Amino acid sequence: MSDQVKFVLDETHIPKTWYNLTADLPKPLPPVLHPGTKQPIGPADLEPLFPMELILQEVSGERYIDIPQPVRDVYRMWRPSPLIRARRLEQKLGTPAKIYFKYEGVSPAGSHKPNTAVAQAWYNQQAGIKRLSTETGAGQWGSSLAFAGALFGIDVTVFQVRVSYDQKPYRRALMETYGARCIASPSNETESGRAILKQHPDSPGSLGIAISEAVEVAAKDPAVKYSLGSVLNHVLLHQTIVGQEAIEQFAMAGDDPDVVIACAGGGSNFAGLAFPFLGLQLRGGRKRRFVAVEPAACPSLTRGKYAYDFGDTAHLTPLVKMHTLGSTFIPPGFHAGGLRYHGMSPLVSHAKELGLIEARAYHQKACFEAGVEFARCEGIVPAPEANHAVRCAIDEALRCKKEGKKETILFNLSGHGHFDMQAYIDYFEGKLVDRDYDEKELATALAGLPSVAA
Amino acid sequence: MSDQVKFVLDETHIPKTWYNLTADLPKPLPPVLHPGTKQPIGPADLEPLFPMELILQEVSGERYIDIPQPVRDVYRMWRPSPLIRARRLEQKLGTPAKIYFKYEGVSPAGSHKPNTAVAQAWYNQQAGIKRLSTETGAGQWGSSLAFAGALFGIDVTVFQVRVSYDQKPYRRALMETYGARCIASPSNETESGRAILKQHPDSPGSLGIAISEAVEVAAKDPAVKYSLGSVLNHVLLHQTIVGQEAIEQFAMAGDDPDVVIACAGGGSNFAGLAFPFLGLQLRGGRKRRFVAVEPAACPSLTRGKYAYDFGDTAHLTPLVKMHTLGSTFIPPGFHAGGLRYHGMSPLVSHAKELGLIEARAYHQKACFEAGVEFARCEGIVPAPEANHAVRCAIDEALRCKKEGKKETILFNLSGHGHFDMQAYIDYFEGKLVDRDYDEKELATALAGLPSVAA
Repeated sequence: MSDQVKFVLDETHIPKTWYNLTADLPKPLPPVLHPGTKQPIGPADLEPLFPMELILQEVSGERYIDIPQPVRDVYRMWRPSPLIRARRLEQKLGTPAKIYFKYEGVSPAGSHKPNTAVAQAWYNQQAGIKRLSTETGAGQWGSSLAFAGALFGIDVTVFQVRVSYDQKPYRRALMETYGARCIASPSNETESGRAILKQHPDSPGSLGIAISEAVEVAAKDPAVKYSLGSVLNHVLLHQTIVGQEAIEQFAMAGDDPDVVIACAGGGSNFAGLAFPFLGLQLRGGRKRRFVAVEPAACPSLTRGKYAYDFGDTAHLTPLVKMHTLGSTFIPPGFHAGGLRYHGMSPLVSHAKELGLIEARAYHQKACFEAGVEFARCEGIVPAPEANHAVRCAIDEALRCKKEGKKETILFNLSGHGHFDMQAYIDYFEGKLVDRDYDEKELATALAGLPSVAA
Repeated sequence: MSDQVKFVLDETHIPKTWYNLTADLPKPLPPVLHPGTKQPIGPADLEPLFPMELILQEVSGERYIDIPQPVRDVYRMWRPSPLIRARRLEQKLGTPAKIYFKYEGVSPAGSHKPNTAVAQAWYNQQAGIKRLSTETGAGQWGSSLAFAGALFGIDVTVFQVRVSYDQKPYRRALMETYGARCIASPSNETESGRAILKQHPDSPGSLGIAISEAVEVAAKDPAVKYSLGSVLNHVLLHQTIVGQEAIEQFAMAGDDPDVVIACAGGGSNFAGLAFPFLGLQLRGGRKRRFVAVEPAACPSLTRGKYAYDFGDTAHLTPLVKMHTLGSTFIPPGFHAGGLRYHGMSPLVSHAKELGLIEARAYHQKACFEAGVEFARCEGIVPAPEANHAVRCAIDEALRCKKEGKKETILFNLSGHGHFDMQAYIDYFEGKLVDRDYDEKELATALAGLPSVAA
C-alpha cells in the first residue's frame, strides 16, 4: 500500500465560482408557478422570502457565478474537503474496483450543508437581514445555518420536526451552542403550527409542516427572511463546490470516476457532487453514470410522479415541477430524517427526466449494514443518510467484482453520524425495521396534486 | 483577511519517526519500581501486560524511534491533522496575539487518542495477540482502541467507568460500531470489580477501578494484553507526531509559537504537542513557554505531591514517580472524564519538576464559556477536556492584549465534543457547578501514599 489514499488541497484551491447546470441543459427547466394564477412567477414574487441576490441565482442561466470572497474566507476553515480512497474497504470486498469518497463531514456542523448555509447567511447579511427562519428534520441543516448565523451576526430560528427534537437533544444543543433558537414543530408560534396542534395535539411533525411554519414567520415579518437547505436551484448551486473540488482531486490522483453516487433527499447533496461532472459531459466530455440513492420508504425519484406540487404541507410555497409523492404524503418513520421529504429538487428531477441520471432506492437495514462495514474499514461512522450512498457504492463494487471490471467509483460521504448514534444502537439491538410506505396513502396523496394545464 | 488560515500537509509529510524526550532530558527519569521489592523493575516484569516492542519503547533512551509503515498507512487516513489560525477568535478578542490550534478532532474516533491506539494495536498484532483489554472514562480512548482493533483484527474489551457508561450511550454505540465489547465498570467480570460491587453495589466507578479491572483481565490470561491510553512513556512517544507536524506547519506559516498550551489528564495530549518543541529547546533552540492545563477539581500537577504511587485503585500496577493526588483520591464529578485521573504522566511530572513546563488549573464553567465563544467564532465545538486548553489560550491572548504584546499562541484542540453535548446542555441550563475536591479527602489520600526510600 504505497500509493496515496488522501488527496488534500490547500485553501488557495477552493473554487472561485459555483457551477450552474442550467447553462448546459439540453432543455430548459420548467418554470416555477404561482399557486393561485398558475402562471410563472417573477423574482419579485419571492422577495418576501429571500434576498434579491439569491433570487437572481435561483433564476440565473449563467454557467459560473462568483463566490464572494467573504464566503470563501469561511469555506477555508474546512475546505477543500478531502477526497479519500477507501483502500481498506476495497480489500475487504475483494473488488477490482477503486472506491473513492469525498468527505463532507469535516465541516464544523458535520455535513455538506454549511456550503450553502454560509453563502445564504452572507447574502442575507449583505441585504441587511438580521434574522432568518428555517426548518430542520434530522438537524444537519438547522445546525449548519446556526453556525453560519453565528459567523455573520444573524439570529437564526429553527423549527425542528418534533420527533427529531425529542429524539436528538444533542443536535439541538449544537444549534444552541452556535446561538440559534430551536423550536419543536408543530409549535404554537405560527398559524400553521396551531392549526395542526388543534387537530393533533401529539403530532410528531414533518418536514412539510416545519417548512410551513418557517415560511410563515418570514412571510409575515419583513425583517425576517427564510432559508432552505435543499431543493432550490441556488442551494444546489452552492453545493457544486464539492464536485468541482473532486474533479481537481481526481486529476491529482491520476484517476477518473466511472460512477458517481450520492444520497438524495431534497437533492442538493447529490447535485453538489454530480453536476460539475455532468456539466463536463454535457459540454462534450466523457459519459459517466450518476446514481441518486433514496430511501425505499420515501422514494420520490423512483416512485413519485413528475408533476407540479407544493413544497410544504400548508401550501404556502409556489408550485415547482418535481418528482413528488404528494405534499400530504407522510413517510413512515426511519432513521434518515434528512431524506424524509415528499419531493425532489426540480433540477435533479429534470435531469432524471432527461435520462442524464439514474435513481435507486434502498431499505434502511441494508444501508446500516453497509455503514458498519465501512466504519470498520475506514474509521468514519457515516450519517444514516450517507449510508444510502455507502450501500450503493459497495453494491457497485461487488458488481465490478462479479463482472471482473476495474471501474472507479466515487461517492459523497455527506456527513458523519456522531449525532445519530441512536440509530446505530437500534440497528445493533435489532430494533431497526424496514418499513414500506402505505400504497393507498401514496395514491391519495398523488390524487391530491394541484391541477396545472400541461 | 487574505492570509492563510489553514496549514495542510499531504500524507507524504507524516513524520517517519516518533520523538523521545528522554534522550534530551538534563536529568534522567526516576525508575519504575516493583510494588513489593521497591526495586527498579526490568522489561520482563511488564511482559504479562504489554508486547516486548512496546516495553522496549517504554524504557528506550533513543531520540528517534521509527514509525512502522503499516502504522503510517493508517495515520494517513486523517493525518497530518490541520494547523488552523483562529483569526475570527483573534478579532473577537481584539488581541494583537496570533492564535493557532492543532486540530486532532479530525481522526475517526474524534481525538488525538488514535495516534497511540493504532500503534499499540499494530505492535500487539505483530506479537500474535488477538485480544486487548483496556479502560475508558469519557470514552475517547475506548473508542480509539476499538477503531484500531477493527483495523488489525484484534478483539477489544473496554471497561467503561459506570457513570460515563450510563451518561454517554452514544460513546458506547461508537465502540460497538467498531466491533468492541464495552462493559460498565465496576463489573462482575473481575475480582477487583466484584470486591468493589460487594461493598458499593451502586458504585459509579472511577478510572482507577476500571484500570484495575482491565489490568486484571490481562494479567490472568496470557492470550490477552493490556493497553493504556495515556501516562506511560510509550503512549506519550506515539503522540509526538502531533508536535512534529506542528513544527513543519509553523515553518509553512512563517511563524513560531511563543506559548504552547494543552490540557493534561494523564499527560499524553500535552506531551504530544509540547515535547517536540521542548526537544528543540533542550538541544539549544529558543526558549518557549509550555502550559499544561488541568481541572481545578482534579489538580495533580498544581496540587498533587511528586511521589511514587500506584496507577490504579486495586494496586495491581508498578509504582511510578509522578504528581499524584493519591490512588484512593476520588475527584468530584465534572464534565471532562478524560481529566479525572489521580496521577500525571511520569515524564510530564519530571519536566515540571525540572522547571521546563508550567501548569495551571481551571474550574469547568470558565472552560465551557471559552468553548462556546470558540465555537461561535471557529465553528468547532470542543470536547470538555479541550475546553481547558481553549480557556488558557483565550486568557493568554487577553494578557497579550493588556500588555500590548504580539505573541504567537498555539494550543492543542485535542478533540471535538460531539459525544459530550450533554455537558453543553447542562452549561446552557445553568446546571454546571464548579466543584472543588474535598481537602480532607486529599490529605487522607496523600497520607496513604506507599513509602519508598528516597
